[in-house]
Amino acid sequence: MSVIYNKVALVGLGLIASSMFWAMKRRGLAGTVSGFARSAETRDTARRIGLCDTVCDSLADAVKDADLVVLAVPVGAMGEVAAEIAPHLKPGATVTDVGSVKRAVIDSVGPHIPDGVHFVPGHPLAGTEHSGPESGFATLFDNRWCLLVPMPGSDPAAVATLRTYWEGLGSYVDEMEVDHHDLVLAVTSHAPHLIAYTMVGVADDLNRVTDSEVIKYSATGFRDFTRIAASDPTMWRDVFLNNKDATLEILGRFTEELFALQRAIRTGDGALLQDYFTRTRAIRRGIIEAGQDTDAPDFGRAKVER
Amino acid sequence: MSVIYNKVALVGLGLIASSMFWAMKRRGLAGTVSGFARSAETRDTARRIGLCDTVCDSLADAVKDADLVVLAVPVGAMGEVAAEIAPHLKPGATVTDVGSVKRAVIDSVGPHIPDGVHFVPGHPLAGTEHSGPESGFATLFDNRWCLLVPMPGSDPAAVATLRTYWEGLGSYVDEMEVDHHDLVLAVTSHAPHLIAYTMVGVADDLNRVTDSEVIKYSATGFRDFTRIAASDPTMWRDVFLNNKDATLEILGRFTEELFALQRAIRTGDGALLQDYFTRTRAIRRGIIEAGQDTDAPDFGRAKVER
Repeated sequence: MSVIYNKVALVGLGLIASSMFWAMKRRGLAGTVSGFARSAETRDTARRIGLCDTVCDSLADAVKDADLVVLAVPVGAMGEVAAEIAPHLKPGATVTDVGSVKRAVIDSVGPHIPDGVHFVPGHPLAGTEHSGPESGFATLFDNRWCLLVPMPGSDPAAVATLRTYWEGLGSYVDEMEVDHHDLVLAVTSHAPHLIAYTMVGVADDLNRVTDSEVIKYSATGFRDFTRIAASDPTMWRDVFLNNKDATLEILGRFTEELFALQRAIRTGDGALLQDYFTRTRAIRRGIIEAGQDTDAPDFGRAKVER
Repeated sequence: MSVIYNKVALVGLGLIASSMFWAMKRRGLAGTVSGFARSAETRDTARRIGLCDTVCDSLADAVKDADLVVLAVPVGAMGEVAAEIAPHLKPGATVTDVGSVKRAVIDSVGPHIPDGVHFVPGHPLAGTEHSGPESGFATLFDNRWCLLVPMPGSDPAAVATLRTYWEGLGSYVDEMEVDHHDLVLAVTSHAPHLIAYTMVGVADDLNRVTDSEVIKYSATGFRDFTRIAASDPTMWRDVFLNNKDATLEILGRFTEELFALQRAIRTGDGALLQDYFTRTRAIRRGIIEAGQDTDAPDFGRAKVER
């Protein structure tokens, strides 16, 4: 693949930005890649592991002459970063982000983008429970979706180039309307994360069940919750604070449904439970068919020969 | 390893029993293994794939002369099976089970066990989201815990032999008091499963977010819930109906905690959220250190070289 942007600036050097760097290098998508992180320790780590062609000590240096600027900081920090880089953006450049919510990012970043600079919000649906500059890897985006949320009046050519870039990183690309994005993600990601955090917190709180027992006997469902609940705390704090309405709506729906199932347990309505569990099992099949997981049995066990 | 039981009878031929068979064969733990399943189709499948040395068409034939009888049927079916096999049990034999709840199994099976037969309830903490005779594999129990719940008055020699047998299948073995078992499992397994089922059901119900979107964009937390929610519906119906009190208690605690976090989202209490998520992240570390998972990043992505 050939160079898509002559210079790409990565602002924030965590899991997503570092994976983007290695994925760009794999395919030669950028002439040069600059990077910036607020923390000196993160910048030192980046220099030590060769993350970015140039690690800059200022935001202004990082974004100078960049054709693509990627905001890869927690959602709550995006507005401040946008204000700071605005005077240094090259005319004709594209600014994008990788935030998990889009309405709040558009509201906080949008007003700072100068005329003549293209703002095309984005969200790669990929990640792991690890964070930081050393957690990235080139294949993170392979076979995963990246959602672009163009603004009314976004330059179609800038959107098309960004799409090609994400495809080069390994993603499938879709465009989505901003509020629909935030609702879909509340269902598929934000509510499940809050639920996993809650369940792990409950287990930790119970004095009668010691920590060591919960941990020792975790290979029974709980372990998968702990993986989700190990995700970056700052990032997730910002997600919930910035996708408040959709997340609370889905959690309300969840609670209503949970109460119905609790009631079935209390009253001994086995038929309701079995029907419900049979229906949810079918959804799993759809995910495997969509290529978003394999049907290899998991729960920590790979199936091998008998 | 040498033969521990001359004849083992597997009653029910699903994921657990079939894995036990392949694990016994791997180490030569049984002289011969007989099997029985209520469904003729399951028996045919077992014969076709070589599951069990002998697949019997009656329970009486399967358990005849068996030194160990393993009840591996849904918890709700255990009592009926116990009543049916009771007259055919060999004096001095051990009866065990693999049910996910123990109080209900002890209450329903215990009264049918004849004098001179040892009843030692058990529960291997291992499984996958697949079920049926073809889902088993020899390594399912490796490095996983099996909890034995001896009855007051259980013969120590019978308990010790069963422990050696489970160790031969690859497990670590602990003994646990019955009600404590049911509470620990409500926390680590039963409540998480009901929560996962609920979240997947909610996603399926939402008309504004089509199925295909939920499935397509599942690699963001939701997918891990669907794996849990794909577990065997009949088995799980029986778990909830038979560990009602402990499960409802934990779910009550979970709801209380979820409401507190929802309130923090609604009021914008970022510090509470971040503290909470930081605490839950630490629990993950404990599970990795306990050898019950690896720290390989998941969410469907193995970390490879940069």
